[in-house]
Amino acid sequence: MSSFAPTSTSSAGDRNAQFAQYDAPDAVYFPGIPAIPFKPDAGPNETMVYKTYNPKQIVNGRSMEDWLRYSICFWHTFRGTGADPFGFPTLIRPWDDGSDSLANAKRRMRAGFEFFSKLGVKYWAFHDRDIAPEGANLSESNKNLDVLVDLAEELQKKTGVKLLWATCNLFAHPRYMNGASTNPDVHVLAYGAAQVKKGLEIAKRLGAENFVFWGGREGYHSLLNTNVRRELDHMAAFFKMAVAYKKKIGFTGTLLIEPKPKEPTRHQYDYDAMTVIAFLKNYGLDKEFKLNIEPNHTTLAGHCYEHDVTVAAAYGLLGSIDSNTGSPDLGWDTDQFPMDIKNTTAVMKVVLEQGGIQPGGLNFDCKVRRESIELMDMFIAHIGAMDAFARGLLCAAKILAEGVITKQVAERYSSFDSGIGARVEKGEATFEELEKFVLENGEPKRISGRQEHYESMINYYV
Amino acid sequence: MSSFAPTSTSSAGDRNAQFAQYDAPDAVYFPGIPAIPFKPDAGPNETMVYKTYNPKQIVNGRSMEDWLRYSICFWHTFRGTGADPFGFPTLIRPWDDGSDSLANAKRRMRAGFEFFSKLGVKYWAFHDRDIAPEGANLSESNKNLDVLVDLAEELQKKTGVKLLWATCNLFAHPRYMNGASTNPDVHVLAYGAAQVKKGLEIAKRLGAENFVFWGGREGYHSLLNTNVRRELDHMAAFFKMAVAYKKKIGFTGTLLIEPKPKEPTRHQYDYDAMTVIAFLKNYGLDKEFKLNIEPNHTTLAGHCYEHDVTVAAAYGLLGSIDSNTGSPDLGWDTDQFPMDIKNTTAVMKVVLEQGGIQPGGLNFDCKVRRESIELMDMFIAHIGAMDAFARGLLCAAKILAEGVITKQVAERYSSFDSGIGARVEKGEATFEELEKFVLENGEPKRISGRQEHYESMINYYV
Amino acid sequence: MSSFAPTSTSSAGDRNAQFAQYDAPDAVYFPGIPAIPFKPDAGPNETMVYKTYNPKQIVNGRSMEDWLRYSICFWHTFRGTGADPFGFPTLIRPWDDGSDSLANAKRRMRAGFEFFSKLGVKYWAFHDRDIAPEGANLSESNKNLDVLVDLAEELQKKTGVKLLWATCNLFAHPRYMNGASTNPDVHVLAYGAAQVKKGLEIAKRLGAENFVFWGGREGYHSLLNTNVRRELDHMAAFFKMAVAYKKKIGFTGTLLIEPKPKEPTRHQYDYDAMTVIAFLKNYGLDKEFKLNIEPNHTTLAGHCYEHDVTVAAAYGLLGSIDSNTGSPDLGWDTDQFPMDIKNTTAVMKVVLEQGGIQPGGLNFDCKVRRESIELMDMFIAHIGAMDAFARGLLCAAKILAEGVITKQVAERYSSFDSGIGARVEKGEATFEELEKFVLENGEPKRISGRQEHYESMINYYV
Amino acid sequence: MSSFAPTSTSSAGDRNAQFAQYDAPDAVYFPGIPAIPFKPDAGPNETMVYKTYNPKQIVNGRSMEDWLRYSICFWHTFRGTGADPFGFPTLIRPWDDGSDSLANAKRRMRAGFEFFSKLGVKYWAFHDRDIAPEGANLSESNKNLDVLVDLAEELQKKTGVKLLWATCNLFAHPRYMNGASTNPDVHVLAYGAAQVKKGLEIAKRLGAENFVFWGGREGYHSLLNTNVRRELDHMAAFFKMAVAYKKKIGFTGTLLIEPKPKEPTRHQYDYDAMTVIAFLKNYGLDKEFKLNIEPNHTTLAGHCYEHDVTVAAAYGLLGSIDSNTGSPDLGWDTDQFPMDIKNTTAVMKVVLEQGGIQPGGLNFDCKVRRESIELMDMFIAHIGAMDAFARGLLCAAKILAEGVITKQVAERYSSFDSGIGARVEKGEATFEELEKFVLENGEPKRISGRQEHYESMINYYV
Repeated sequence: MSSFAPTSTSSAGDRNAQFAQYDAPDAVYFPGIPAIPFKPDAGPNETMVYKTYNPKQIVNGRSMEDWLRYSICFWHTFRGTGADPFGFPTLIRPWDDGSDSLANAKRRMRAGFEFFSKLGVKYWAFHDRDIAPEGANLSESNKNLDVLVDLAEELQKKTGVKLLWATCNLFAHPRYMNGASTNPDVHVLAYGAAQVKKGLEIAKRLGAENFVFWGGREGYHSLLNTNVRRELDHMAAFFKMAVAYKKKIGFTGTLLIEPKPKEPTRHQYDYDAMTVIAFLKNYGLDKEFKLNIEPNHTTLAGHCYEHDVTVAAAYGLLGSIDSNTGSPDLGWDTDQFPMDIKNTTAVMKVVLEQGGIQPGGLNFDCKVRRESIELMDMFIAHIGAMDAFARGLLCAAKILAEGVITKQVAERYSSFDSGIGARVEKGEATFEELEKFVLENGEPKRISGRQEHYESMINYYV
Repeated sequence: MSSFAPTSTSSAGDRNAQFAQYDAPDAVYFPGIPAIPFKPDAGPNETMVYKTYNPKQIVNGRSMEDWLRYSICFWHTFRGTGADPFGFPTLIRPWDDGSDSLANAKRRMRAGFEFFSKLGVKYWAFHDRDIAPEGANLSESNKNLDVLVDLAEELQKKTGVKLLWATCNLFAHPRYMNGASTNPDVHVLAYGAAQVKKGLEIAKRLGAENFVFWGGREGYHSLLNTNVRRELDHMAAFFKMAVAYKKKIGFTGTLLIEPKPKEPTRHQYDYDAMTVIAFLKNYGLDKEFKLNIEPNHTTLAGHCYEHDVTVAAAYGLLGSIDSNTGSPDLGWDTDQFPMDIKNTTAVMKVVLEQGGIQPGGLNFDCKVRRESIELMDMFIAHIGAMDAFARGLLCAAKILAEGVITKQVAERYSSFDSGIGARVEKGEATFEELEKFVLENGEPKRISGRQEHYESMINYYV
Repeated sequence: MSSFAPTSTSSAGDRNAQFAQYDAPDAVYFPGIPAIPFKPDAGPNETMVYKTYNPKQIVNGRSMEDWLRYSICFWHTFRGTGADPFGFPTLIRPWDDGSDSLANAKRRMRAGFEFFSKLGVKYWAFHDRDIAPEGANLSESNKNLDVLVDLAEELQKKTGVKLLWATCNLFAHPRYMNGASTNPDVHVLAYGAAQVKKGLEIAKRLGAENFVFWGGREGYHSLLNTNVRRELDHMAAFFKMAVAYKKKIGFTGTLLIEPKPKEPTRHQYDYDAMTVIAFLKNYGLDKEFKLNIEPNHTTLAGHCYEHDVTVAAAYGLLGSIDSNTGSPDLGWDTDQFPMDIKNTTAVMKVVLEQGGIQPGGLNFDCKVRRESIELMDMFIAHIGAMDAFARGLLCAAKILAEGVITKQVAERYSSFDSGIGARVEKGEATFEELEKFVLENGEPKRISGRQEHYESMINYYV
Repeated sequence: MSSFAPTSTSSAGDRNAQFAQYDAPDAVYFPGIPAIPFKPDAGPNETMVYKTYNPKQIVNGRSMEDWLRYSICFWHTFRGTGADPFGFPTLIRPWDDGSDSLANAKRRMRAGFEFFSKLGVKYWAFHDRDIAPEGANLSESNKNLDVLVDLAEELQKKTGVKLLWATCNLFAHPRYMNGASTNPDVHVLAYGAAQVKKGLEIAKRLGAENFVFWGGREGYHSLLNTNVRRELDHMAAFFKMAVAYKKKIGFTGTLLIEPKPKEPTRHQYDYDAMTVIAFLKNYGLDKEFKLNIEPNHTTLAGHCYEHDVTVAAAYGLLGSIDSNTGSPDLGWDTDQFPMDIKNTTAVMKVVLEQGGIQPGGLNFDCKVRRESIELMDMFIAHIGAMDAFARGLLCAAKILAEGVITKQVAERYSSFDSGIGARVEKGEATFEELEKFVLENGEPKRISGRQEHYESMINYYV
């Protein structure tokens, strides 16, 4: 036997009374937890302090917070319940009555901004349905959203926290089970369009620096009942309408597509960075979108941690990063907090090389493990990840500042800097000319790739 | 971004009124759907009839239903909601008000027995918490269970459907998040013990032919906080107490352990068939348990579909089969309906060779896809799988009856039937003797493995 | 411990004498094996006859051989030795002295054409270095090639067997260890260019209907020493020179790129169909190339068997198919003979729907298992696979002729055939208009995806 | 297309003349490379010095070299050619003429001992066929072996380097293609027996501290032609004869089995640590064998890096470690040099906790990448890995010395130290008693698993 889908065990409703204390605008959601201090000499057991992350510290000419642009994803941190396909919710927050009421939504949002502030993180991100409950119909859902957007605007002003990106949840509601923009029924596509229309409007209002599309249900479970080409054509039509509407309302944030290979859908059309690039090129959309890369999705697609970050950057399309990780021995999405310094160094090296991730950021698209049930675990997890990326930044900055590795890489390719190599790069060379070169120069010298030497050099820095 | 854990959207409670029609003992839950007929000449679009499964048809001396012993897993078919880590429930049944009430539990059970009967399946299987809601404490939970066991007893008698196995859900409740018998807290282990004690009692009462243990949370997420040896010792102690209690109350069903490599836990101690055998041997439990093999788990463990069935049977430990499948390109548990005739043939060949699966069976531990929302889809899925296994049975029976393949396999090993080969098998040979044999006989002749020939022969039958 | 790279055990040279009997133009390489007959009523043990493949039989208006266009890959069938990373060669052919002599090359080629003819296959395919030994330098290698191309031309004429495609081996020689067109050293790129120049010339001479590029070493082992963008730019420059030279010499065959995700390289730039499409689009090459899809590579990339075939066809880029398979539980390239009828049906359905695979074909890029050491195993393996694809063709043809499934799929998308759906497809719709549609029409009806119904229908045909 | 099996390109034989300089007993194989110094303040580009490994440095009461017991695997370092399934050899050593001559074998061995000595490694390990060529028959092979064992004895004495383990190659020769001890033909089993008989004799002579069995071909490619149970019975019979012979000749080294899940065989019977334990228990062999764990195989089996090390240690069966790594995104055996400090820390923590790995060691079962063609790369790779394990040792020693983490883990399980928990551990508790405990004590308190806290603590040390 196996699958055990969770059902709600909360009774909700009349329990609301006990949550009243959290309704006040000045309610404290994390009592006893101060703003997280920077304490570089803290011991191993002190996991509620930053040991490396020091926002104003200058690294390669810019502040840490400017390079790292941390953001917290509202869903992962405030809407995750710890439910999994075999277990009920475990993460019961004292302010959350489990209901879909507006009051509950407001409590969650206030708790969120206290959390962002105590961590000292300058950005947040959300799906529309994270922050406000779905209503009985579209109008009611939009009205609910307006109420919470009002509160978000107020809290953003009050705390100085800004919106890295907004997105629309086009995958959780049953209507989207067969896809949103790729649904065989145009009625569902229309619903998704209406939702994104509203999403772009609130993104503009809240000053979102980006707007993300993640197509969790855009794909297929079985090719037997699927017309792949027609679905992709519809997806492209949908994105074109989004671009048109964005321009019409004057939203200036970057549109981002987030690749994922599979889960929940067996095959997702936005499999990985290169697949999304193919899609954008196929439909002439490559000037209008960049990519939001999640390394956890990258590894699920069969690549190494930093592959999609590297590939997207190579084509000038790295827009933002969902900075999480997975367990490489698992075949599903775990959204763990990134704690590996080698990985964070690799990612930050790409970010440094492209001159920063602006207007994107490092969004913590991470969930505490469902066994990490304490409020403190929420802090410990984010702090650990922020320190891990800060260490990655320092390592990468040192690697680039010293230039030992980068110089050796450049030398590997130096034969293309002049002569016949330069002619190849400029598109001037021909097969005849290259054959002549070989006939004159004979067999190439074999040159060691020196992988272990590079790995040892990295170990010097990490 | 990524994970979106579902929450309940049902309001429950007062909606109960509209479900009253389903409370009557003679209520019909699947109106318009007759007992599924056998119609061997049906066309492709007729997926609500058996084209191959004909229960009384004699195959190799026994009836189809005697070889196949189909069972339906109550949870998968009647408690699955279609919720997944990124989506809300989609499978809304007309009799199910989404509540945890006893009345709802009864409606579900009556629907179940109508379903079993209309399909003509002779067995069912359940977890304790599938059939009755968890109460405020253990006593109340047990009381709820008694109410539903009364009804199950009544419905079993009325329909003739029997209980293939019962099991206890020791993984969904938050108390088990860190394991049940391997929980670091003995209090949780005790709770699991109390639950299994009751489970064995009701299994006895309902005439269960087996009792299953699936350790979904028995394992680790991180070795950093885990004492592997101590946890495995506790698991063994737990099983020993189960054996003692089983004997004490005179429950005569077979105890079965079901392997699974991972999910929900990162590593489950019962990884695969051989791992469970190691565990049983390590703790002297191998005479008391057999294995319940799920091919979907087998493939997740990195093996071919029929591997664990074959290995368990090789050591006389194949007790029962959870007959489902997965998509080999996915890394998580999909519990799909088995539709591949090559796979079902391979499994049924093992079952035929060991003379049947009694007192186990082929339990459909399968969920309809969350997009298959119609009541009819429940039937179509089971019918398709039953026909697939019936076709597998016919293929396997023909393979064994004709004996072409089995004879060729036996010949491959014939050098061990006499002479020095027989001495090796009997444990009489020595290295010195074998060296002498080689010095006298020289290099062995190389003999083709003929894999493609075997594959072609199988294609003749399938 | 683990890896054990094979070394040659043959002494070569003076043993040539004993191979002289195979040097004669009328030598028989497969004595006792006749042209393979069609014998539909053969028994399971008769694996040296076609039970389904009947070349002239008409299926949906065209002959089987016209739909299937079988081809045999010279390397896999005549140059494979059975060596693997842990074992020495096992496949010792009586005519092959293991040397790199021209005489040996000729014997192999003559054996090949006897094999193609006895199987009744109309096409073959080869890498340049398969058919002729690499010489001490480029000129010598080209001279060797000319000798064997002369023989190939003669044998093609004599037997009527045609060349499906030629390709250049730019991965086996040590000079290519760090890539050919993506090598950091332009000297190596130049060598590859010279080799492809010659390859296109001989392809033209032998009437190749296609020319294939497989970039086994075009990728990276470690990002630490790699400039991804520069390497991809060089690869594009290389392909542009190939296109220019093809046009210059008037070679009219289709240029094909074959995707593979990894192995031998950790990451290959041509990861899968969509990745190659992204590359072609990024560099404006999409009008000049089509794809050669190998399902074994497709599954290694994390997709289902027919995914890349489907995706390439969806964009009009399916040029040819390397019809093999793998074991889904293995993570490396096994190039097994395709024996699964469900898989072959899925592929042939795509081929039928696009009106044939011309000028491509179904090339058997398959190796007999290294344990299948008999000459007869070579035949059995190909026959089994040809019958499997012929059965797939018959199943797919029946599915399309009856139209039950295709009609149901078309109906799933019918909302896009008129009204607002048609406006979306034409690119005329807007978000405002779609929102209005939802406000007027409310929540979409939920429609079952019916996956199990489709699976049952497929089981009717297969 | 895809697979391209390598063939030898060396002409051998008469070229021997130029290798004569390496035949002298005082020949220098690595000119210009000194004994590797310890230089803790070396810069990133200095990869030919130890920055951490300092053999005599005392860590937790013992010397580094005593904890680490480094060994070099002769095959990986001196017999690997860089050939892969798609490429010819790239690693051409100046002393190696590519021939199977005894002279060549001697040159390789002398080069090996110079290499061991310059690295300062105290152990080596080998397969029988690594050090001496296979002869025309068993007697000749044994004679060849004796010649090289003479030399090994001399060089061991001269350099002080000792033999960690010997093993027999029962997988590379074609006779073993269908298995050695599990071959369907007893003649092949006999050949393997004769080979191991000799192997044990030379192991004794050279003072091997262990003897390893790796069953690369003991498993199946297809269940269709396989009798799993009979094969496993034969494997057990084989091991029993080995034990008997070991005792007879008085060889006192530990017998070790090395698990691997697959490759070259589709399924290997020694899949992972627990599978081998099951086998040993099934056949009463668990007192005679321990395990040689290779993390690269562990990850291929679907586990985390340190899983099998942990599991084997938990049952007192961790005998030795093949200290290498793989790329988690690849599905085959890469035998890379271990460079990840988190991984080496995890392994060394287990070794420290069990009080050392004696009489086993950390054997570098690693191959330089085939692109790392310089002699210097051999050194850089080993140095990098030795430093990585030395850093892991220092981290693990500090973790254990400070005790912060271990104490927290112990506290997690403290409920089993007394009261009812202790009764469970002693096997005294019953289900009835535990149920009573729950009825009296109610619902267990939920306790956070704190995974992120543990991960942060580890990051403090690493």
